[in-house]
Amino acid sequence: MKKKNKKVNAAILIIGNEILSGRTQDKNVVFIANWLNLKCGISVKEVRVIPDLEKIIITNILELSKKFNYVFTTGGIGPTHDDITAESISKAFKVKYEFHKEAYKILENYYGKEKFNDGRKKMAKMPKGSKLIYNPSSAAPGFITKNVISLPGVPSILVSMIENCKRFLIKGSKTHSKTLNLYTVESTISKKMGIIQKRYKNFVNIGSYPFFRLGKIGVSIVTRSTSLLKLKKVNQDLIKMARQKKIKILKT
Amino acid sequence: MKKKNKKVNAAILIIGNEILSGRTQDKNVVFIANWLNLKCGISVKEVRVIPDLEKIIITNILELSKKFNYVFTTGGIGPTHDDITAESISKAFKVKYEFHKEAYKILENYYGKEKFNDGRKKMAKMPKGSKLIYNPSSAAPGFITKNVISLPGVPSILVSMIENCKRFLIKGSKTHSKTLNLYTVESTISKKMGIIQKRYKNFVNIGSYPFFRLGKIGVSIVTRSTSLLKLKKVNQDLIKMARQKKIKILKT
Repeated sequence: MKKKNKKVNAAILIIGNEILSGRTQDKNVVFIANWLNLKCGISVKEVRVIPDLEKIIITNILELSKKFNYVFTTGGIGPTHDDITAESISKAFKVKYEFHKEAYKILENYYGKEKFNDGRKKMAKMPKGSKLIYNPSSAAPGFITKNVISLPGVPSILVSMIENCKRFLIKGSKTHSKTLNLYTVESTISKKMGIIQKRYKNFVNIGSYPFFRLGKIGVSIVTRSTSLLKLKKVNQDLIKMARQKKIKILKT
Repeated sequence: MKKKNKKVNAAILIIGNEILSGRTQDKNVVFIANWLNLKCGISVKEVRVIPDLEKIIITNILELSKKFNYVFTTGGIGPTHDDITAESISKAFKVKYEFHKEAYKILENYYGKEKFNDGRKKMAKMPKGSKLIYNPSSAAPGFITKNVISLPGVPSILVSMIENCKRFLIKGSKTHSKTLNLYTVESTISKKMGIIQKRYKNFVNIGSYPFFRLGKIGVSIVTRSTSLLKLKKVNQDLIKMARQKKIKILKT
């Protein structure tokens, strides 16, 4: 990984009718977002899910690649007619859509010359100048074009490739988080918690999420910050608030 | 529901740092997308996940409400400092953010006058002119402002409210779908499937998704169309293709 930079962000662009239609539950956002934060100190700031339509892919690639340091696309890099991510990115950046020599060799070796049909060859076509993200599970590589990293939609394959993205990314500051679970309801703590949030406005983000566990209701207070010290302090304040209000704190 | 209209579409806007950070797995997209299609004939055309930041919420509300017939927001309508959906929508549409009389009464009755504190009162504040989406599980209503429908982020509460959205929506044509599971790989069928897709270009959408089941690999071909007849015909063509290529078709 390259030199350290304080704030590095990314967007995730999920390309796939199957997610939009509700047929398939996306699992890649949770995985990519956690991996980016923990391993690279990169925060995901926006996610979009869009259909397999060239015009729409182009518009979104251009918008998101301008707004964020990196864009991770998932889906649409297989051998079939609905796999149009690589060609659409080529059009977005006005570069040729052509065979990548190394990708072609990788796939030819993997399938053997006789079984290397047109569908499989298609997976070696990508925007001119792209660099490869190697794929240890099913050979067909992902690729990085400018600041856009294109990965497959199948979660198990994506997971096997993600570490190979690392060398292309600039490292940022990791966001640390703590969760405080309280047996209370949000409205009991909302006022005081709002005051605490204001106190740490520029350093810590406080989120509150109701939960239901074993028939009891509670609130998870999630604090996130790049500073471990501020995170410790804000949690001391939150615990103090809970004690003053005689709210039970869960151990886990 | 109001009169029938051929093509009605929607976007889903998920407002919540907990989804972006990867802490929480979203479950609302699958549910809303399926419900909209099956019950209302409305297709989800875009999903966005954005942080709890006023400026970003405003921009996205304005963009999506112009582009689509409906926008469904989830999250950010609770009692805490990070619940800013209602106020942000008011600002987006330049209408007052004020107490909704009926919502105020509902919540006052639910909690009782003594326990109706400021946090709880906040849940009765919404954009002027909003109509209520009743909430049978935890009282705090959702609301519709112009073409934007705001629902809570907690899936169980959202599910309990969704039927109450129906009367505000124009009904479109339902998209039917069929799935054909084949024991093959995508590259074996990609060429022929591409030709079939071209034949039904304006009527049927064909998607292909690899699967792994009991150690075997296969492809699910998902066809989607508002016409049941075209759907039947395209599947006859796909089955013919499978037979010609001696590919085993799975029964389920």
